[in-house]
Amino acid sequence: MSIEHLKNSIRNIPNFPIQGIQFKDVTTLFKSAENLNELTAILKKKYADKGITKVVGIESRGFIMGPIMAVELGAGFVPVRKPGKLPSEVFEEQYEKEYGHDAVQIHKDALCPNDIVLIHDDLLATGGTMLATYELIKKIGVKKVYINFLIELEDLNGRLLFPKEVEVEALIKYEK
Amino acid sequence: MSIEHLKNSIRNIPNFPIQGIQFKDVTTLFKSAENLNELTAILKKKYADKGITKVVGIESRGFIMGPIMAVELGAGFVPVRKPGKLPSEVFEEQYEKEYGHDAVQIHKDALCPNDIVLIHDDLLATGGTMLATYELIKKIGVKKVYINFLIELEDLNGRLLFPKEVEVEALIKYEK
Repeated sequence: MSIEHLKNSIRNIPNFPIQGIQFKDVTTLFKSAENLNELTAILKKKYADKGITKVVGIESRGFIMGPIMAVELGAGFVPVRKPGKLPSEVFEEQYEKEYGHDAVQIHKDALCPNDIVLIHDDLLATGGTMLATYELIKKIGVKKVYINFLIELEDLNGRLLFPKEVEVEALIKYEK
Repeated sequence: MSIEHLKNSIRNIPNFPIQGIQFKDVTTLFKSAENLNELTAILKKKYADKGITKVVGIESRGFIMGPIMAVELGAGFVPVRKPGKLPSEVFEEQYEKEYGHDAVQIHKDALCPNDIVLIHDDLLATGGTMLATYELIKKIGVKKVYINFLIELEDLNGRLLFPKEVEVEALIKYEK
């Protein structure tokens, strides 16, 4: 099993969604049964001994590997979504974006104080959405939180937003 | 393993997203590790002998069980999304909604002629989005197509939209 092999299966799309962005298209990884299986095995191994009870996936590309990890780790799956999407009572965390602000929501009854939570999203860029999700879950109060990304864009330094004591993992890294 | 037990774990939300709709909230099923595991085992058993090579999940609640089924069945995962979300070249299918129209897109290189495809979404209501996805995939041309929903609202008769030769499965049914 090789991370480099998985990285090579990700397609680079220049200037998407806007000029100047090199978009990392993970659909070319996921469509291959062999690569998806390999990725799943690597992630399972990484978190198997952590006692994870809930995997939180961030809408909507975090909904792809998040649920898979939940099943593989014997955990439940909890979605974090944009405002207006979750139907029952929610907690919300707002955050600043380049233009204006945005928010993430989680159901009030999604997590318990004894939960060990793995938060997953596909991409760590500037890190705003994940930081808001992390802070939302810290406020709810759980036993421990791990953070996982499929991809990290290292030159954007999103990792620096998170406290040192939190284990932030990214499987596939791009220097720039 | 019991379907009735899974059905009881789904939360009913009156008047969401609009007045008069009884929304079926599957987050209460997915957050339970035991229920998620049970659901996964039932779905795996149902499709294990079909030779599925790709699972297609429809944005965004079809992204939860779709990828899980892909891994369980040894298949690849392919997302179908709303316009503007997929970064590479796409095929598109438009469809009518109550007010105006909408469309679904799939990457042009997502499927091959030899693929046996399982399309998954969480809910069969009027069936418009799934029918558009089914027609999109028929036009691309694959070996065989199966359709799966987690939930079917039987009184809306969405099932009648699909040709008789297509196997349309829904695990959990509501008469009204």
